Amino acid sequence: MQVRAAVAFEAKKPLSIETIHLEGPKAGEVLVEIKATGVCHTDAYTLSGLDSEGMFPCILGHEGAGIVVDIGPGVTSVKKGDHVIPLYTPECRQCEYCLSQKTNLCQAIRETQGRGVMPDGTSRFRLDGQDVWHYMGTSTFSNYTVLPEIAVAKIREDAPFDKVCYIGCGVTTGVGAVIHTAKVTPGSNVVVFGLGGIGLNVVQGARLAGADMIVGVDINPNRKAMAEKFGMTHFVNPKEVEGDLVPYLVSLTKGGADYSFECIGNVTTMRQALECCHKGWGQSVIIGVAPSGTEISTRPFQLVTGRVWKGSAFGGARGRTDVPKIVDWYMEGKINIDDMITHTMPLEKINDAFDLMHEGKSIRSVVTF
Amino acid sequence: MQVRAAVAFEAKKPLSIETIHLEGPKAGEVLVEIKATGVCHTDAYTLSGLDSEGMFPCILGHEGAGIVVDIGPGVTSVKKGDHVIPLYTPECRQCEYCLSQKTNLCQAIRETQGRGVMPDGTSRFRLDGQDVWHYMGTSTFSNYTVLPEIAVAKIREDAPFDKVCYIGCGVTTGVGAVIHTAKVTPGSNVVVFGLGGIGLNVVQGARLAGADMIVGVDINPNRKAMAEKFGMTHFVNPKEVEGDLVPYLVSLTKGGADYSFECIGNVTTMRQALECCHKGWGQSVIIGVAPSGTEISTRPFQLVTGRVWKGSAFGGARGRTDVPKIVDWYMEGKINIDDMITHTMPLEKINDAFDLMHEGKSIRSVVTF
Repeated sequence: MQVRAAVAFEAKKPLSIETIHLEGPKAGEVLVEIKATGVCHTDAYTLSGLDSEGMFPCILGHEGAGIVVDIGPGVTSVKKGDHVIPLYTPECRQCEYCLSQKTNLCQAIRETQGRGVMPDGTSRFRLDGQDVWHYMGTSTFSNYTVLPEIAVAKIREDAPFDKVCYIGCGVTTGVGAVIHTAKVTPGSNVVVFGLGGIGLNVVQGARLAGADMIVGVDINPNRKAMAEKFGMTHFVNPKEVEGDLVPYLVSLTKGGADYSFECIGNVTTMRQALECCHKGWGQSVIIGVAPSGTEISTRPFQLVTGRVWKGSAFGGARGRTDVPKIVDWYMEGKINIDDMITHTMPLEKINDAFDLMHEGKSIRSVVTF
Repeated sequence: MQVRAAVAFEAKKPLSIETIHLEGPKAGEVLVEIKATGVCHTDAYTLSGLDSEGMFPCILGHEGAGIVVDIGPGVTSVKKGDHVIPLYTPECRQCEYCLSQKTNLCQAIRETQGRGVMPDGTSRFRLDGQDVWHYMGTSTFSNYTVLPEIAVAKIREDAPFDKVCYIGCGVTTGVGAVIHTAKVTPGSNVVVFGLGGIGLNVVQGARLAGADMIVGVDINPNRKAMAEKFGMTHFVNPKEVEGDLVPYLVSLTKGGADYSFECIGNVTTMRQALECCHKGWGQSVIIGVAPSGTEISTRPFQLVTGRVWKGSAFGGARGRTDVPKIVDWYMEGKINIDDMITHTMPLEKINDAFDLMHEGKSIRSVVTF
C-alpha cells in the first residue's frame, strides 16, 4: 500500500514528506494506522548523526498511537479495530528476560530492531525500489506502519490519540522510573535533575507515588512554574546556589534524597544525583542518555555507605502490561499529559517540531494524521 | 583496673604489649573480658598510617569475642556472664537509621567512635597519665575493653570464642553481603572477585543461599583449593584468560552474573565486577575498601541496561539482631569458620599476625587471651 511518511534521507537534514510503499503484515505482525505521534529527543539524536545505530534512509518516530487495521497470520493478542500504542521495548512474555520477572528489557527482537528491519530480517518500507529502514521497531512518522504483535500495547478506545501517544515514550519513561524502577514509597524525598519532558513526568510520578518533598533541579528558571503544576515542591537553580550543589541538596532534604533521578544525560549531574542521596539507603536512577564515550564516576565509599546506583529504560515498564495502566491513569486524571503537549501539527510541519525542540520552546510536540 | 593490651603508639611501628589502665563502665556501658580477637586488614590499614581517621596511641582490634564482667548503670540488654561479640557497627534501634529498616548503619555513636572516644567524649584507656584512644569503638587487642551496651551482640554460651570472634567482622561482612545486601536467591550465578578472607565468606554465603554457579576470581592460584572447600564451583585466574576478563566471565556465566562481589578494594576490579553482571538485572556489590582518592567509573549505559551498583558495610547486618544468628549457623555447621583460622597465637605474638597477613600466609590469625 501507499503511505505518507516523513523520510530521513540522511543525518542533519530536514525530514522529507514522501509517499512510499509499505508492505502488509506478515506472520505475527500487525498493520497500524498511526493517528498521532510525539517527536522526541531520541528522534533528534538519531537525526543528528551521533547515534551509532542510526541508519538512513529511515522512518523515524517511536511515540505513537493508532488503530490496528490488518493482522498477519497467527496474530491472536490484537484484532482489527483495536487501539494500540507501538512499543519500542516489546514484551514477548517468552524470552529469558521477560520470564525473569526482573527486567522489562525483552530481547526477543532486539537484534533485528537494531538493524532497522522487521524480525524476518527485511524492511516493509520501500521508496523508488530501495529499502527504507525501520527505526526502533516502530517508525511512527508514517500514517501507517507495521509492527510485530509483541510490540503493540492494546489500550482503551476512549483515550485520545493525540495525548496518549506520549505514553509511548516520555510519560512511561518518567512515571515508570518512579513506579517500577525506583519504587518510590509515600513520604519519600525525591530530587529530580532536569525538568524537561522526562523530568516533569518523574515529578508527577513522584506525586502519584505519594512523595513528600519533590525537588526539581534545573538551570532554566522558566521550568519552575511548569514543574510546580506537576507536583514539584522545591525548585533549585544550581546557578543560584552558593557553594557546592550536593551539600545544598543534602541539607535541603534533611540528610539526602531517598530517591534521585537524572533526566538530562550529563555525567556530571549523574554523579551529583548519586551523591545527594541519603546515606544508608538513597537510590539514584539514571534515565538520561549520556553522549557516547562519556563515563560516570564516584568514590566507592558512596556505595559502601549505602547508596545505590541504577538506571531505567522505558521506565522499567513492561509494554503490553504496564502501558495500558498508564493510559488508565491518564483517563482517570491521576496524571496530566495535556499540559505537556505544547504544540500540535500535521505531518507536513514535522520539521517545526524539531526546531521547537532545539530552541527549547516545546515540552512535547505531537504530529496528528 | 589494670589490663594487658597491644598498644599502637604510632603508625608503621610494631604493637607494644603494655599494662595500661582501663576505667570501668559508665552509664549504658559494659566491661567485657576479651577471650579472643581476630587480626584484620583494617587494623593493618590503620596501623599503616593511611587511614585518615587513625589516631595514635590507640588500642586496635575490632573482631573480638568475650564475656560481660561488669555493667554500668542503666544497662538492661546484657548482664554479667553473658557471652558477647563487640560491634564496630552498633545497633541502637532508636536512631533514624535503625528505624528506617533500610540500613544497618546505626549512627547513634558514630561521631565519637570516629574520634577514638566513648559516647561521653572521653577515653577509658590511660597509660602513664596519657589518654590512649579507642579504635572502631571496640579495641579488642586488650584482655578487657569497655563498650556501649548497643555495641555488643549477645551470643550463645557454647560457641567457642577463638572461632566466633571472626564473626565480629570478616564472616559477617562476607556472608552478610550475600544474605542481607544482595539477597542472593537459590539458583543464582555468582562471581566473587578476590578469594581472601572476605571472598571466602562470600563464597560460603553464596553456597548457603543456594547459588548454582559460584565463580571465584583471583590471580593467586593457591586460593583455588581453599575456595573450593567453601563452595566455589569455578575458578578463574585473570592471568590465564586470553583477552578481556569481562566477556570471559559473561560467557562462563551464560550471560553474566546475577550477583557479583568485589572483595579486593581495587577500583579496576570494581568496574569489572559491575560489567560482568547480567544485562537487565545483575547486581554488583562493593565490599572491598579502595585507597583514598581513587574512584570507580563505568559507562552509564551499564546501569541504564539494568545493572545495579551498590555497596555493603558489615555485610548489611544489624549487629545485635543478625550476628547471633550467624553464630547459630556456625554452631549448626551451616558455615565453616574453623578452616579459615589458619593461625592462633597469644597476645605477645600479635605482631606475627600482621607479618603473616602482609606475607599472604594467613587467611585469619586469631589472638587468644
